[in-house]
Amino acid sequence: MSILKSPLTRKLAAFVALSETDLDILSRFHRSKKTFLPGHEMITEGQAKQTAFILAEGWACSYKILADGGRQIVDVQIPGDFLGLRSVLFRTSDHSVEAVTRLEASVVLAADILDGFGQSPRLATAILWAASRDEAMVVEHLVNLGRRNAEERMGHFLLEIGARLKLVGLGDKLGYDCPLTQYHLADVLGLTAVHVNRVLRNLREDGLVTFQKGRVTFDDFERLKEFSGFDIDYLDHDGPLLH
Amino acid sequence: MSILKSPLTRKLAAFVALSETDLDILSRFHRSKKTFLPGHEMITEGQAKQTAFILAEGWACSYKILADGGRQIVDVQIPGDFLGLRSVLFRTSDHSVEAVTRLEASVVLAADILDGFGQSPRLATAILWAASRDEAMVVEHLVNLGRRNAEERMGHFLLEIGARLKLVGLGDKLGYDCPLTQYHLADVLGLTAVHVNRVLRNLREDGLVTFQKGRVTFDDFERLKEFSGFDIDYLDHDGPLLH
Repeated sequence: MSILKSPLTRKLAAFVALSETDLDILSRFHRSKKTFLPGHEMITEGQAKQTAFILAEGWACSYKILADGGRQIVDVQIPGDFLGLRSVLFRTSDHSVEAVTRLEASVVLAADILDGFGQSPRLATAILWAASRDEAMVVEHLVNLGRRNAEERMGHFLLEIGARLKLVGLGDKLGYDCPLTQYHLADVLGLTAVHVNRVLRNLREDGLVTFQKGRVTFDDFERLKEFSGFDIDYLDHDGPLLH
Repeated sequence: MSILKSPLTRKLAAFVALSETDLDILSRFHRSKKTFLPGHEMITEGQAKQTAFILAEGWACSYKILADGGRQIVDVQIPGDFLGLRSVLFRTSDHSVEAVTRLEASVVLAADILDGFGQSPRLATAILWAASRDEAMVVEHLVNLGRRNAEERMGHFLLEIGARLKLVGLGDKLGYDCPLTQYHLADVLGLTAVHVNRVLRNLREDGLVTFQKGRVTFDDFERLKEFSGFDIDYLDHDGPLLH
């Protein structure tokens, strides 16, 4: 795959005009690609010397396990996302990452990332932007859990994933293919699987959004946005800020 | 104030051995210090061209306002923390920041940050580490809201603030001075102020922690840690990883 077609390149190019040097560094990041099967634990909470990955194809999720065995999914990762960027900088990883589908990802070494930063502060800034955007999403998930009801949470989450997929050329305003199960949704939204079922039925019956057979269909995109309090600004999609 | 005594320097020095160049760059970040009164809105959600700040003295909190007027506090900032680092990289700020106490902060320009990154990739990495640590805290707050009960949330939050203060030389295992009101705690933990009151009473009566008259006292630090599921690893306090 040409580096120009990498979803990460596509995402970073939304923020900075990438130079030849930047593309060379990004190519180095993509050197070692591997395939992982669904359910494979790619990063383990609490373990040292973790590597980071760049997701090229497929979906993953990052999560934490609680003392009582409960699981809270922190975020879902789609093509173009880093997996475990924090794990590289931290002594031990503060979360686990699991493959949701079969996926393809490049292994990125800490040394390559630090060297790349040294060669291109502009690329470092773009990656800091991508990391900041990930943080902005976690912040929105926090607001979801703290202050939105179950239907609003679900609507907000399905809209966010749609917007993220659109940025890397997957999905559109009509909807997108989504491999997440009701168990994943429950662990993202702090609900039980039974509750997720009821919430999805309510949203469908209200003519807002339908999630069936691995496909999310926005039945009324504008009304769902309003209902969920979804404001796309936090995803910062308005194009390159640094030229 | 000597740059060596700045809480940010102290925090970054926990991660990397700072060179003379790094200290020069950090001095430049601290050039323009200002005082802000309690309640002053330092960063406004949705506004463009925001500056970032480095907090030298006092407390702040970052939050989002919901459509229904409710407020979710995303994080509390203490000396050594950046305020609005994301605001500098993003077109508009995705959150607001308010002074909790009277505070002193240095205004940091985006250009200074980007120049600094160019001159010292090592410092850029240290700042990326600090940003990652902030994200790890937001992740823990998310787990708090999604999967912990009100007493566990409160215990976890009070322990986290204690650990963060200790890193910059404020507070110890016995406790710390805390200017947050019950309204702040309610907006952090997704509770009502009345509920916060009851939760604090329960924790005090169980002999775990007392929060009274602006002072948090750990009555039984070890038992509170166990009760709240607090694992300090996510704060990555084990000393310099990059030498």
